[in-house]
Amino acid sequence: MKSLEQFFNPSSVVVIGASNSPFNLGSTICKLLKEYLNFSGQIYAVNRKGENVFGCDGFHAVEEIPGQAELAVIITPAGVVPGFVRDCGRKGIKNIIIESAGFSEAGDTGTKMQEEMDGYRREYGLRIMGPNCLGVLNAHAKFCCFYGFGPATMGMMSLLLDKPGTISYIIQSGGIGVVILESFLKEVVNINKMVSIGNKTDIDEADLIEYFKDDGTEVIGLYLENINDGRKFINSVKKLGKPVLVYKVGKTAEGARAAMSHTAGMASNDVIFDSACRQSGIIRLKSISELHSMPKIFTSMPILKGGNIAIFTNSGAFGGITSDLLVEAGLSIPRLSTDTQVKLSSVGQIFNVSNPIDLGPAISPQIYIDIFDILLSAPEIDGLLPVPSIWQPFVIDALDELVKMCEKYGKPAAIYTPNSVEKIITTRKERQIPLFESPEEAVRALQISYEYGRHIDKINKNV
Amino acid sequence: MKSLEQFFNPSSVVVIGASNSPFNLGSTICKLLKEYLNFSGQIYAVNRKGENVFGCDGFHAVEEIPGQAELAVIITPAGVVPGFVRDCGRKGIKNIIIESAGFSEAGDTGTKMQEEMDGYRREYGLRIMGPNCLGVLNAHAKFCCFYGFGPATMGMMSLLLDKPGTISYIIQSGGIGVVILESFLKEVVNINKMVSIGNKTDIDEADLIEYFKDDGTEVIGLYLENINDGRKFINSVKKLGKPVLVYKVGKTAEGARAAMSHTAGMASNDVIFDSACRQSGIIRLKSISELHSMPKIFTSMPILKGGNIAIFTNSGAFGGITSDLLVEAGLSIPRLSTDTQVKLSSVGQIFNVSNPIDLGPAISPQIYIDIFDILLSAPEIDGLLPVPSIWQPFVIDALDELVKMCEKYGKPAAIYTPNSVEKIITTRKERQIPLFESPEEAVRALQISYEYGRHIDKINKNV
Repeated sequence: MKSLEQFFNPSSVVVIGASNSPFNLGSTICKLLKEYLNFSGQIYAVNRKGENVFGCDGFHAVEEIPGQAELAVIITPAGVVPGFVRDCGRKGIKNIIIESAGFSEAGDTGTKMQEEMDGYRREYGLRIMGPNCLGVLNAHAKFCCFYGFGPATMGMMSLLLDKPGTISYIIQSGGIGVVILESFLKEVVNINKMVSIGNKTDIDEADLIEYFKDDGTEVIGLYLENINDGRKFINSVKKLGKPVLVYKVGKTAEGARAAMSHTAGMASNDVIFDSACRQSGIIRLKSISELHSMPKIFTSMPILKGGNIAIFTNSGAFGGITSDLLVEAGLSIPRLSTDTQVKLSSVGQIFNVSNPIDLGPAISPQIYIDIFDILLSAPEIDGLLPVPSIWQPFVIDALDELVKMCEKYGKPAAIYTPNSVEKIITTRKERQIPLFESPEEAVRALQISYEYGRHIDKINKNV
Repeated sequence: MKSLEQFFNPSSVVVIGASNSPFNLGSTICKLLKEYLNFSGQIYAVNRKGENVFGCDGFHAVEEIPGQAELAVIITPAGVVPGFVRDCGRKGIKNIIIESAGFSEAGDTGTKMQEEMDGYRREYGLRIMGPNCLGVLNAHAKFCCFYGFGPATMGMMSLLLDKPGTISYIIQSGGIGVVILESFLKEVVNINKMVSIGNKTDIDEADLIEYFKDDGTEVIGLYLENINDGRKFINSVKKLGKPVLVYKVGKTAEGARAAMSHTAGMASNDVIFDSACRQSGIIRLKSISELHSMPKIFTSMPILKGGNIAIFTNSGAFGGITSDLLVEAGLSIPRLSTDTQVKLSSVGQIFNVSNPIDLGPAISPQIYIDIFDILLSAPEIDGLLPVPSIWQPFVIDALDELVKMCEKYGKPAAIYTPNSVEKIITTRKERQIPLFESPEEAVRALQISYEYGRHIDKINKNV
């Protein structure tokens, strides 16, 4: 299998269907690449008039392009797409993203056109992404061929691509892509790549997971409406050796039916999918927001290697709330050893040295740091659930330290701050502190990390 | 039972323990009332020096106060609290809020002091709120005796009290109170009253529910760590005839244990509590955030009278996602009647007239309004789940109209907008549009409204 690298980092791209007509969608791709992302590769436009579009050289036809293009992005009415695919084949352009809709998701005529394109694919040895998709985003290469964004979203995109990371997404819906991209404004979610795969006539989720094995990706998030080939998908995950988080629609017959009219896949048996996930260590997400809220427990924190959690809070209520949540999530709140209790008592100012540990409003960051150190170094504790109130900015300084201490001790902390949430969210972005937005989110992160850790354990034992 | 009105709207208050010493907590109550809320009643301070505090006349002792005070707020070290309670009794001050901690939640000595105060209560015919609490907030009277706030929170409080509403809260934790108050900055949650009840030596949740029957409250939210008297609680709810939403800690043994060290109640049997909730129509919340996200489905929308929901979206993915969620919540996504389908087709521009209804990016608000009208007037539909993308500001205008149309047709809509979430949250606050922040929240709101509607039905049939 030829690498998918040229889809993500092409030295030259042709946007077929980009023109200067009002409401033209292809032109938004040219504008994004030229004016917002300063993409360094060559960009061409193909349209009826052969006109230049936002500084991209324009041509009447694919064959007129000088030299070669590594990638073609087609965004035209569906009826003319197959012809352009053939043109690309003849010209020697091997990688094609078809963003146009109106194929297998739209009935018989569309399905026939999709089959025609598939013929050209085989004939010319092409790789096709889509149709009915947004294509790819590569934050490191500053390349993105998502269409239809206005200036506000383009501005946001350019900010986003200034902070590339290690999380990659495979999403079978442009709408979900936008939700994830917008989360970047306030969430510690730094993206490596994002792909919107649409009807996946050729390239599917398994191909991409395989590609993400060696491209710097640390965690993969997926939004799926159907699975092309269950066995291939599971095998790609097994070979990957990294956390894979999946939100899949179609848990109910009604959901599966609705998804089918969107991206045209066959509904898969959800019970089988669920059990396959469990066997292969895939983490099945419970809400769309977990696609952006959960990856940070893997990118910013060590894996949770046991189920014993210490709760630390300034507010007694959150001791009880998080105790309920942890136990319901299958984790434990162990008694602290005498040794740990003695150490905590010597710090002073603690209402309650049992677990949950209840601290009043502390007057210096050192108290927090001392407590974190005692808990992280305690052998009876595998991870922390700190629920500090932000009384003073120094609490945030202490959390900064906590992130480093977690690294040092190889134990994770899932932090939630009950007050000053709006303010803290700005801070977490700037300082890259992996804060969660609710006690439920924080506990869920520990649960996910623990599940993944146990899966890794199981594999290591079998080897 | 004497009314609790003087706790919420006193013509005169004495803050016992307010002084000008550094870090004095009572002084923050004087400052809040005088400088931020412009409370119109008389405020006195009692402290060792007899000094004035933030413009409140100061005295050495309770007996020195000229005339009478309707309410005493005690915030001193625990050891001297019983003496002040006795002084209030002798002076004829009948209503006392004890904010100090260190009583039954803190061990034997504290329990004895709490018993001593209880003796004075019986001797002098007092009503006591607390100890170990924040006391009350009454947005309509601009009265609040919560302590410990800094200038930023006080400023927020004064904004909050400028928009009083019809939601009342009973919370057994100051920390949760702060979470709810902060939600006001972005949430459509307009407060009537809030009470932090602490150890509830005298006044408990049932007394307050009874008081909230005739004070303009439409919905009550509770955070409870224990129930004083289960039968009394359930009876107060039965007589109320309004939605009661409860988050109760102690679903697990660990949670109950943690709560006990916080507010000193006996852990109640959670299974019994749960079944009592179901029988009396109490809505048991699943997360703390539901305390502020859910009331608006009652205050801004009619009750959901049947389980048949129409989904409307611009993004196919959310058709599938919300279908799954609705079915899992026990609601239905019925086929649309031929009549409704014909009407929808005549609007034009709709991808899919089946339910979920998928609309592309519409170019005028009228299209949205026409669709909302067709769906709300359809006899096969009981409520809407609109998931519009905000492409243009006019979509928000259409949502404004939708709120009015729901009122007209007596059917609710739970709105979620997948994109522009940060922007829309500012708008929803200004324009009081009851938007939810996730598809899960929106579906949960419909589920809660439906549950409550069925409970009302059952009662009406039995009468």
